[in-house]
Amino acid sequence: MHKSKLVAAVIDCQTEDLTEAARFWSAALGRTVAASDNPAKDKYVTLGSGKEELIVLLQKVPHPSRVHLDIESDDVEQEVKRLEALGAKRVEQIKTWWVMEAPTGHRFCVVRPQRDGTVPDDANEWS
Amino acid sequence: MHKSKLVAAVIDCQTEDLTEAARFWSAALGRTVAASDNPAKDKYVTLGSGKEELIVLLQKVPHPSRVHLDIESDDVEQEVKRLEALGAKRVEQIKTWWVMEAPTGHRFCVVRPQRDGTVPDDANEWS
Repeated sequence: MHKSKLVAAVIDCQTEDLTEAARFWSAALGRTVAASDNPAKDKYVTLGSGKEELIVLLQKVPHPSRVHLDIESDDVEQEVKRLEALGAKRVEQIKTWWVMEAPTGHRFCVVRPQRDGTVPDDANEWS
Repeated sequence: MHKSKLVAAVIDCQTEDLTEAARFWSAALGRTVAASDNPAKDKYVTLGSGKEELIVLLQKVPHPSRVHLDIESDDVEQEVKRLEALGAKRVEQIKTWWVMEAPTGHRFCVVRPQRDGTVPDDANEWS
């Protein structure tokens, strides 16, 4: 048995510097840039505390800008297999997470638990 | 003074029929299709109860598939003006909402309160 839940919306920005993206999106969403993040240098910038039910991240990317969803799981491999059985395809493994493509063509990621090392109590349980 | 908050992630699907999209995404995210929605016919399908902190919707669209974010506000016009001052541009008004484009190129929407006619207590307040 493993668990999973939608955890983040990632705003992928095709840029070399997230400063302007962080300025706009933090003001638009009313979420301050995490104090530990440096938009001018970092690949990832968290908007807000990172403790919200939905985490919002900015990511510096080489491909055209888009938004993608992240699903967190206490067992990434089992979750990837479950999603493959539903018709998704593995695209690329990066460090501890998998980039996948849905049958609808949307890219999304399966990631490890993003807060406190565990998934939330109301995560979905799969057997 | 008005209020706003990130309210939804909308999975835009370039298709004539959301049945397959609803099958995959409802199973992937562990959110059942709202009983009132018909993926084979409807333009919008809610995944889950629609009462979650983040609403997830599928939308049938003519343009390439993507994900976009919705910001809800108790004063759509004031929120649009606030976002314009931050550098966003109005793209198109549809019924009661505005499609906008962020300085980062991402499209997003400013919509009326999506639940119970009011924004949540923890929405951002702008003066």
